[in-house]
Amino acid sequence: MKLTILGCYAATPRSFTNPTSQVLEIGNHLFLIDCGEGTQVQLRRNKIKFSKINHIFISHLHGDHFYGLVGLISTFMLLNRQNDLHVYGPKGIKEVILLQLKLSKSWTNYPLYFHELTKKTPEVIFDDERVSIETIPLKHRVYTNGFLFREKPGDRKLLINKAKEYKIDVALYKSLKKGKDVIAEDGKLISNALVTADPPEPKSYAYCSDTIYDPGITSQIKGVTALYHESTFLESESHLAEPTQHSTAKQAARIALEAGVGRLILGHYSTRYDTIDFFKKEAESIFSASELADDGLEIILD
Amino acid sequence: MKLTILGCYAATPRSFTNPTSQVLEIGNHLFLIDCGEGTQVQLRRNKIKFSKINHIFISHLHGDHFYGLVGLISTFMLLNRQNDLHVYGPKGIKEVILLQLKLSKSWTNYPLYFHELTKKTPEVIFDDERVSIETIPLKHRVYTNGFLFREKPGDRKLLINKAKEYKIDVALYKSLKKGKDVIAEDGKLISNALVTADPPEPKSYAYCSDTIYDPGITSQIKGVTALYHESTFLESESHLAEPTQHSTAKQAARIALEAGVGRLILGHYSTRYDTIDFFKKEAESIFSASELADDGLEIILD
Repeated sequence: MKLTILGCYAATPRSFTNPTSQVLEIGNHLFLIDCGEGTQVQLRRNKIKFSKINHIFISHLHGDHFYGLVGLISTFMLLNRQNDLHVYGPKGIKEVILLQLKLSKSWTNYPLYFHELTKKTPEVIFDDERVSIETIPLKHRVYTNGFLFREKPGDRKLLINKAKEYKIDVALYKSLKKGKDVIAEDGKLISNALVTADPPEPKSYAYCSDTIYDPGITSQIKGVTALYHESTFLESESHLAEPTQHSTAKQAARIALEAGVGRLILGHYSTRYDTIDFFKKEAESIFSASELADDGLEIILD
Repeated sequence: MKLTILGCYAATPRSFTNPTSQVLEIGNHLFLIDCGEGTQVQLRRNKIKFSKINHIFISHLHGDHFYGLVGLISTFMLLNRQNDLHVYGPKGIKEVILLQLKLSKSWTNYPLYFHELTKKTPEVIFDDERVSIETIPLKHRVYTNGFLFREKPGDRKLLINKAKEYKIDVALYKSLKKGKDVIAEDGKLISNALVTADPPEPKSYAYCSDTIYDPGITSQIKGVTALYHESTFLESESHLAEPTQHSTAKQAARIALEAGVGRLILGHYSTRYDTIDFFKKEAESIFSASELADDGLEIILD
């Protein structure tokens, strides 16, 4: 799993920071998570292939999380995209995108599917042989979901020398990788465990932005490899967190600690702060494996 | 008059170019013309005060000319704007902006007025003591207007030494500036022409983007100080100009020549071109006072 932060700053614009958007790479998938204004330019700058993005997940309909979506959809059209595009987001997202395409007398030349979300409990919204994705209902000023990405266990790792030693036909290697016992060339039954090893531990990533501090989410995200949790404010501005339904760095760290996650990635910093160093310090006082997202940063989740 | 080019490239995004937006400064007015995605960041980078923008003119509802508008309107809200904001643009612009504000449960805390345009003939849409603004109906794939900004003649220039020589009371200087004759302290009638000079010639600016080559506009923009005319293509791609209803640099120059404008500013370059130098060369072969817009460029129109 590789996470690329395209933007991780809160709403008001600055010359050189970007609103929220991330790309999560799992195998051949490139999942785009949120799409603030300017995301398409950030994709270009980070040399991410537009044509490989087939699934876009929008947490909520505040502008700094989705005003870049219509531009990206339009650009896909100009680039003669052929692949299906799936957009997952709150109810209303379809109407607003289609209205803008209609006003510009534009229609996509590729199939565009909207998966509008309305549930207030977790639901699986994507599932294939490699990954499953479910919503994490969050508490914010508007209907909001985080997203939980779980890799599925891969094939068992074939111990090639062992397989040769036990004289197993090459045609059976695929069965071995799938965990099956096989019959060797000499007729003996070979137990799978003798010739394979466990696959790498599946990784998981929880994206939680925007949200008020809500310990109710910890059971769902328990033990994930990495948690991105918004930290719009520092504790010194905690009086602003509750009315705006955002979190502080300390609160994000508490969630990480309670959920026992592998690591915490902070982001969605208010642009009132000139430096983001204090977010890390504040979170580390609660949860040591805390780190800072920043625009353009690539993070390997292992 | 000062023109600041925030963005002057056509639709598809690149790492370091911007879609269409310009700021025209006339006296105390800052008029924003078009508002492609990322305009608010370009305003920041060019150190233009958000609070001084009270009038926004949208030529047409293609994304590269207005996808940045909703973000700017939202940001004005976050910055606690108080002043009225007036948006002039094609019918439909109000619906799409208000739908997005509704979905994000946001309302502006400042008065927001939409002036929706539907006419296919020129109309005056703004007029005060300093400037008048009228639409320039253009031919493009969707309903489109250019905008013609005309300064009004300023006060006459007081020749202060002459006024003293003729012993004119200071209280009468205002009348002199307004072109009136006055009575001097010694009772003599002083003809205005003796103590004032003509004010600077009023400037005018015609913004024409996007449009097919249309000589029909030349009578309306005759003799303007400066014409910004789109030149999406070079003549080598003229076969693309007609179906997409855009112009070539040569066609823009023909319009400038036929209209007898002071200078021609080219822009809205297709991102297919690696360099824009050829646009200038091509236009200059027809109209020598041709120049290139570029992102971040400030142009004094005098």
